[in-house]
Parts: sequence; structure tokens; C-alpha cells
Amino acid sequence: MSLPATHVVYVLTTGGTMEKVYSEQTGSVANVDTKIDRYLKLLRLPDCEVNVVPLMNKDSLEMTDADRVLILGMVRAILKENAPIVITHGTDTMVETGLYLQRALPELKQPVVLTGAMTPLGFEGSDGLQNLTESLIAAQLVRAGVYVAFHGAIYPVHRVRKDHKLGRFVGTDEARGRPD
Amino acid sequence: MSLPATHVVYVLTTGGTMEKVYSEQTGSVANVDTKIDRYLKLLRLPDCEVNVVPLMNKDSLEMTDADRVLILGMVRAILKENAPIVITHGTDTMVETGLYLQRALPELKQPVVLTGAMTPLGFEGSDGLQNLTESLIAAQLVRAGVYVAFHGAIYPVHRVRKDHKLGRFVGTDEARGRPD
Amino acid sequence: MSLPATHVVYVLTTGGTMEKVYSEQTGSVANVDTKIDRYLKLLRLPDCEVNVVPLMNKDSLEMTDADRVLILGMVRAILKENAPIVITHGTDTMVETGLYLQRALPELKQPVVLTGAMTPLGFEGSDGLQNLTESLIAAQLVRAGVYVAFHGAIYPVHRVRKDHKLGRFVGTDEARGRPD
Amino acid sequence: MSLPATHVVYVLTTGGTMEKVYSEQTGSVANVDTKIDRYLKLLRLPDCEVNVVPLMNKDSLEMTDADRVLILGMVRAILKENAPIVITHGTDTMVETGLYLQRALPELKQPVVLTGAMTPLGFEGSDGLQNLTESLIAAQLVRAGVYVAFHGAIYPVHRVRKDHKLGRFVGTDEARGRPD
Repeated sequence: MSLPATHVVYVLTTGGTMEKVYSEQTGSVANVDTKIDRYLKLLRLPDCEVNVVPLMNKDSLEMTDADRVLILGMVRAILKENAPIVITHGTDTMVETGLYLQRALPELKQPVVLTGAMTPLGFEGSDGLQNLTESLIAAQLVRAGVYVAFHGAIYPVHRVRKDHKLGRFVGTDEARGRPD
Repeated sequence: MSLPATHVVYVLTTGGTMEKVYSEQTGSVANVDTKIDRYLKLLRLPDCEVNVVPLMNKDSLEMTDADRVLILGMVRAILKENAPIVITHGTDTMVETGLYLQRALPELKQPVVLTGAMTPLGFEGSDGLQNLTESLIAAQLVRAGVYVAFHGAIYPVHRVRKDHKLGRFVGTDEARGRPD
Repeated sequence: MSLPATHVVYVLTTGGTMEKVYSEQTGSVANVDTKIDRYLKLLRLPDCEVNVVPLMNKDSLEMTDADRVLILGMVRAILKENAPIVITHGTDTMVETGLYLQRALPELKQPVVLTGAMTPLGFEGSDGLQNLTESLIAAQLVRAGVYVAFHGAIYPVHRVRKDHKLGRFVGTDEARGRPD
Repeated sequence: MSLPATHVVYVLTTGGTMEKVYSEQTGSVANVDTKIDRYLKLLRLPDCEVNVVPLMNKDSLEMTDADRVLILGMVRAILKENAPIVITHGTDTMVETGLYLQRALPELKQPVVLTGAMTPLGFEGSDGLQNLTESLIAAQLVRAGVYVAFHGAIYPVHRVRKDHKLGRFVGTDEARGRPD
């Protein structure tokens, strides 16, 4: 199999903790503006054309069915470009959105990799840039399908759940994204 | 295929720019002590047992045949654990070392992923943590073989060279690490 | 005038935004544990013995009269060491606490410098380490009295107020901490 | 004494370790372009108009008498603005330049504060931003005279020397910048 020397990846942003910012006015964190562009610039990706598509900026607990329809619509549109897609998303309903996409896209020809963060990009100890880096690599290497990339692991979306106590994702069985 | 819930990766460190430190006494950068442990701690890898094996700490231009024999010996020893290996290495002779390992290990059953950096870990604009993150993910996802992971791309070692003008690796043809 | 080669400064911590941490469980920021020690270690202060006294860890809007009595008591105790004091404090009632100390300590023989932050230490764009650095220098250079050190300015506490719209302190007249 | 609500400080840059950059081509650090502007932007100085004057970018061991004449000329020109001056400078001959300025400017009406760094701005463990922050505060607070600001201490230039073993400045007696 061969890829063009420069390959294309889409990053569809929907919000979640990864993109939260601290407000000096209110003393709280919230989803306001996308900040992924600023952090993607810290990565060197000379062979990769990364197209950021800022779709919405929501805490995933506030994500509605209508929002998921919107995400699916945008994923369908991007898939016409025949490129893998990374979706940044809040962790609380990431699997729900992923399963919805998996059901709606039975003939998927590209990887769709969901990722997010437990601590916002740019806060001390953030896992955001790590997860973003991993999902961009995973999107190049895994087979077509819907995945969650998080904390050094790649899970098919139907084999993962968020463990709220541990504050991370855990596989529901031992399967990972490695080709069989 | 299934992996155990916690998988094991070895990180064999040989030096290179990634591990260089700035000396206040001399005003220059050099390979002194390994510092990868400190940076690995910035990553969250709850499902991954990362075993760091600090073998040597050399600028890769000073690496000798004897050093490569040592690296091969350690790789052989680690492969008995049946785990993937990431090797951190200077960029100037990374491909040379990789090709040597590839020739010496025709029956390789695990991924061996070489990586390094153009700017030392912890210096402004460093690509070190990105490359380390990518190589740890790649080591889980690619088939058995010897690879270079760098700047968002994974190359089979026989299809990549360092471009000194560009200051990075470029594929010698279009092939990447994605399974055929 | 001469100081001993190594001088002593006390840092009395009371909380405020400077010390807030992001909680992955709740998705909010709050005062939990002191983190100033971790950030003081980023500064090189070879001639300075910095004694951190963690007194409380409160949002300054929740600070009570009883808390201020406690702060005053600790300041009195430290002043017996004949050393300058930096107090980290929430910005909303920093001036109130400072004026209370000024009234209660008419015979002050040392500088007492209040400081804080608009964004917590370790969050992108934080002003915390800057303000801490400035207050430690100011505590060495200004005359006895109560001051606010913030964003590159040193104000006598009776000549400053927080401007909530601007999100910083402004002088109520032109006076600064420079000796007359 | 009263200062205008917004005060002016000049930052005259001459190079030194503080401004060194790592070159990926050569694997060494050198003085190439000024980078102080980028780091000054990390500080919040709303009451302070900081005017950066990039004069030269030299390792201070390579600084010549002609360079010091140039520095003196620029200092004289800036003093006409009646504003304090921070001079960034390599540490090896910082005191030499400072003593030269002190002799040449017996009627100095403003503080002239020399500073620098042991590790370049933006390298792990750098003391550059700390020293820059401290010198900007010191320039507001000390009396007219020539000083070195470094690692939390402010020394009159005739009472300080670089200790090469310790890798920092030490006072030659106990005097500091605090007003008598």
C-alpha cells in the first residue's frame, strides 16, 4: 500500500475539556473558543496537511442528539475527501458519539479517531497534547473504523468505556487497534 | 488479535540530540546523562509498562561499529521478552543503525522503532517529546519490522533517509508503516 | 546599610487564584493544596533563605475576619525574626487584608508585600510566577510598610485598588514604592 | 516622590547567554537574533512602557572596547529620556561593562541595571525570565547607579563579581541595593 508523500488528516473539533480555557473574570473554566490551532503549531508535521474544522465548542455533557447529527453530517462530508479524521470531544460522552458514528457509517473506508483530555491544553499536567499527538499517528496507522485514542492506547470504540473513578478510558476486553 | 490489558514497551536509549543538555560551565550542549525518564513522566501511559534501558549516551556521529554490536546485543536480549522496542538515537546515523539491525534480525517478531530529535528535550521548540510519544504509539500499532518514527510519520527503515538541508527525515518512496 | 550575605524572606500563603488547581473529577478550579513550593523551586535564589509558611488555602472572597486575625497573628510572629514577608492572597480582598495589617501594625519595621495572580500558577498565560518573583525582589528593596506587588508595579496598600473590569490593580494616585 | 501612572523602561540588549539559540544545523548554541521580545510578552506590565533597543548580539567574551563605547553611547542617548535602563549582557564581562559605565557616568540620574542568564531563555531550567523580571522591578525601585540584578539579588556593580565555579554572582561585601 502506498500513501502520497504528503497525506491529509482532518481534525474536527467539538469542544470538551481539551479546549477549555480559564476565565479570569469568573474564575472558572469553560468552552469558549477553539485553541487547538495554537497547540497543533507546537507539533512538527511536515508530511501531513492537517485541516482543522472547528464545528462546535461544547462540554460533552451538554451535547444533544442534534449536535451528534451535525457531527455525523460533517464526518460524511469530510469522508468524501478520502482522508482519516480525528475528532476532539469531551470524554464523558465520547464513546456515545463514537458508537453513534459507527452505527451510522457501516461502510467506513477511513479511520475516525476520537480523542480528548482530562485536563485542558496548556494547564500544568495536561494530557491534551499527548492525546492529540497520539491520535494523529493512530489515524495514519489503524484500519478503517471508529476508535478512541487516549493515554497511549488505541481502542475500537465498541470495546472501551470511560472509567470515572480512574479518570481515563479502559478497554472492555483486551482488544486494541493493532491489525489482527 | 488480543493484547494483555497492560502491555510492555522497552525504551532503549543511546543518546543523540534528544538527550543533550546545556552546560552552564562550557556554554555548549552535550550528551551527559539520560534525561528521558524525566520527560516520560510527563506522559500518561496507564496501560503501558515502559521499561527504560539506558545503554549509552552518544552523539550518533561518534557511534562506532562496537556500539552497534552492543545495541544489537541488547535488542536481542529484550526481544526474548516478546515486547516492542523504541530506540532513541541521534539522527545522523539513525538509519545506518536501523539498517544494521534489520539485516541482523531477519526473523524479527516485534516492532523496533527508532526515534530521536532535532532539538533536545526541554529546549524551546523541541520535537523530542512529540517524537517519543509517536514512537510509543507506533510501537503498538505497526507490524514486526524496523522503523523510524519522526515528525508525525512512520517509515520502514529501508525507505527513509535524513535530509540534512530540511533537518528531518524524508521517505525514499511513498511507503509508510500502515499495514498493506 | 548592610544585609547579611544570605538574607531571609518569609512567604506566608493564604490561597487565592495563584494556588488554585484544576480538578479532573469536577472540571473546576479550587483551592486545595499549596503548590507554591513547586514553583519557587523554578527560581534560583542562592542568597535568599525562603521560608514558606502555608497558613490557609482560601478563595479570598471566602476569607473571614477570623482568617485575618490568624494572618495578623502569624505576621506578628514572623516579624520577631526581623525578616521581610511576602503574603500570597486572593486578589478580590487583598487590599482589605493589607489595610487591616497596616492599621494593626503601625510600628512595622519590615516590608510586608502582598501578591497573588489572575490565573493560577502553571496555567497557560499565568501571571503567578512573575508576581511571586517581583514580590520577592520588592521585599528586599522597599522600606518598611505594607505593599501590593502585581504586574510589574509596587503600590503602598493605601494607594491601590483592584480594577475588576481591567482584571488588575491600579494606583489610586501616582505613588509607587520607590523611596521618596 | 511620584511617578507618572505609566512609566517607561528601556531594555538595551547586547546578547550573552540569555539570548543564545540552539541551532539544529550545527548542534550548538550561539547568539543569532534577539529573542527577548518573545519572552517579554510572557510578562504582564500594564503600567510600564518597555522599549527594547537591540544594540548587538554577542557572547560577552567577544565584546571589545569599541562595543563598550557603543553601549555607553546608547546609554547616554537613552538617559536623555530620563528613564531607567535594563541592559542584558553576557555574564563573563558584565561587571567589566558595568564598571566602565559607572566611571563614564559619574552624574547618573537613573538606575542602570545589568542582567543576563546562565542558561538561555526557553531552555529547561533557564534563569533568564526570572532575571529579566527582577531587573525590571529593580529598575523601578533602586536609586540612581549601576547595578547587577541576578538570581534574586541586586548588587551595586562595584561590589559584585562573577564566581565561575558557583556559576553565579556573589557580593564582594555585604552591600545590596536597598536604600540606606
